[in-house]
Amino acid sequence: MTIDYQSRLTALQIDLSNQHIDIAMITSPANVFYYTGFNSDPHERFMALVLDNRKQEFVLFVPALDKEIAESESFVKNIIPISDEEDPFAKLEDELGKNVERFGLEMKAVSMYRHNHLKTAFPKATYDDIEPFINKQRLKKSRSEWIYMQEAVDIIEKVLTEGIKKVKIGMTEAELTAELEYLMKKFGAAGPSFSTIVLSGEKSALPHGTPGDRAFQNGDFLLIDFGVVTKGGYCSDTTRTFIIGEATDKQKDIYSIVRQANQAGVDAVKAGVPLKNFDIEARKVINDSGYGEYFNNRVGHGLGIEVHEEPSIHENNEQIAENGLLFTIEPGIYIPNFGGVRIEDEVYINEDGEVEVLTSFPKELQVL
Amino acid sequence: MTIDYQSRLTALQIDLSNQHIDIAMITSPANVFYYTGFNSDPHERFMALVLDNRKQEFVLFVPALDKEIAESESFVKNIIPISDEEDPFAKLEDELGKNVERFGLEMKAVSMYRHNHLKTAFPKATYDDIEPFINKQRLKKSRSEWIYMQEAVDIIEKVLTEGIKKVKIGMTEAELTAELEYLMKKFGAAGPSFSTIVLSGEKSALPHGTPGDRAFQNGDFLLIDFGVVTKGGYCSDTTRTFIIGEATDKQKDIYSIVRQANQAGVDAVKAGVPLKNFDIEARKVINDSGYGEYFNNRVGHGLGIEVHEEPSIHENNEQIAENGLLFTIEPGIYIPNFGGVRIEDEVYINEDGEVEVLTSFPKELQVL
Repeated sequence: MTIDYQSRLTALQIDLSNQHIDIAMITSPANVFYYTGFNSDPHERFMALVLDNRKQEFVLFVPALDKEIAESESFVKNIIPISDEEDPFAKLEDELGKNVERFGLEMKAVSMYRHNHLKTAFPKATYDDIEPFINKQRLKKSRSEWIYMQEAVDIIEKVLTEGIKKVKIGMTEAELTAELEYLMKKFGAAGPSFSTIVLSGEKSALPHGTPGDRAFQNGDFLLIDFGVVTKGGYCSDTTRTFIIGEATDKQKDIYSIVRQANQAGVDAVKAGVPLKNFDIEARKVINDSGYGEYFNNRVGHGLGIEVHEEPSIHENNEQIAENGLLFTIEPGIYIPNFGGVRIEDEVYINEDGEVEVLTSFPKELQVL
Repeated sequence: MTIDYQSRLTALQIDLSNQHIDIAMITSPANVFYYTGFNSDPHERFMALVLDNRKQEFVLFVPALDKEIAESESFVKNIIPISDEEDPFAKLEDELGKNVERFGLEMKAVSMYRHNHLKTAFPKATYDDIEPFINKQRLKKSRSEWIYMQEAVDIIEKVLTEGIKKVKIGMTEAELTAELEYLMKKFGAAGPSFSTIVLSGEKSALPHGTPGDRAFQNGDFLLIDFGVVTKGGYCSDTTRTFIIGEATDKQKDIYSIVRQANQAGVDAVKAGVPLKNFDIEARKVINDSGYGEYFNNRVGHGLGIEVHEEPSIHENNEQIAENGLLFTIEPGIYIPNFGGVRIEDEVYINEDGEVEVLTSFPKELQVL
């Protein structure tokens, strides 16, 4: 299956027409990728997919040095290169004329600097936020996207399977991180989808810790939270927690509670109920076990082209779950100065409104 | 030597006072790091260093989950955490009051979304761009910063020394990339400072190519352009080009011209002359050899906390070179469907206005 870019663009055009928006300018690299298949970070240079809804036309502006790759990868074939000497706003004005009245933008992606240049180029325009229309589309993953996501999950599981074979007493968190990221590339990923988290011992309780020079010791928790972005441009995000050497009864107990919470969260997932249910069901297991104060995060988040996307799975989200949502379920117990356990899966609500779990790495406690 | 954050803040305060700016809000993570030593990417969350120039006070707003690490790392000790449930703009208003008149911002870093919220919180304010004042400071590297930069260069040279030992016929670009990035972490880097470029054979002529499944062959050019960001937060960026197996006379000739161009560029570097001179001197060697049409880029760029900073070293830049500049000299010859050579060093204009070369990896042609 392939991605149907035309359908995506047409759906956005309909929303723009309903809002009487003349021109939509999309500059977030993730959104440009979503609508064109061209996956590129232009850094400080100007890149924009422009939908001219007056003429039902699409134009992709790219840095001149990306012209050839854009021509080969983009679904939108009307490509205008901009060299470093050229003014992108003058080129926009050449293409669109000065008489734009309703300009649609991603308000969170467009800087004040660019907004000021747009106001000069299009003095009659007012500006509307089009991100809600884009996010509404990106929220629902097709079966084609699921295939790309499953590939990202499969790679990270191969990395984990191989990576934990390297673990030994005395190895540092940073060393294991380097091994894992090496394996990501070896197994065909473009790279990590976020900064790999490898935390051991009491550090495993830190929600935002970074891998350091702490060496693994007998009896440590070992928490690995990581993912890849594939060459196809999709992200995975998976966590497993292990024990090194020998596990205490308290460690086994905490692990078992988190595993049950994870399962309760996954089992709650289906279309037609509020998203908060999935958080509440997982959290209930942890609360009932007396560890509620040690689980302070939402239970999950959407992911796809980006590693954090809509929806947010938290205990106050009344939004109704629907087919096509793809998100994490990642309850945990984090006890300061003791350690933490998190078990994170990725789940999909399929065409029948039922849960499919992308993650297949075993969840039984493994002592390494 | 350590970084003198107080001097940096004081210098900015003077510029703000001269411009009659009441409040400066700095949100670019690189700039927050520059003024506080706290190096963090808040992603979609709100992080800002706020200078209240009416009271000569500094406040650092951070996501609540970064509070402890900010307290330990930031020079600015007045830290206000913002939890996910809180409105950062309301907290800003609580701290500053509604009566801000002149608000200084980084226009390229602040989104329209945030600008709209600021306009609501501070209805009387006008907004000025303070990036020129910040960039003017960051442009000139102190000897303390040079030490951090030299560390970044030293790590990448160790990586290169070890990495090229792994090269063999049949290895792919992606495999060598994985080895190099593994070695970066092994030698103590936080990670790559940009996406590592390993290009072989005719692909070495691509200015924006990405490492792929092309396997190394006898007679290939092998172009490696890469760098690290250190745990201290500074970047390196170095290129060397090798030949695999056996070199032809044409390859040796091209390599020799690029090496002479690199040396001519480096030798031209000193304070008191226009930056364009360094580009012109390097380019002249390539032009005189008849390969001018195959060198289409500027000869270099500044780097430091970020891998692309001011100054830009191009043939039209009349800006006068001064002490403290740190930038690359990276001429190249790129012949489509044949291959390319680039040799990139990092140079510093020292306290005496003279060039110091940070890069020490040999530039003689190496056949691997």
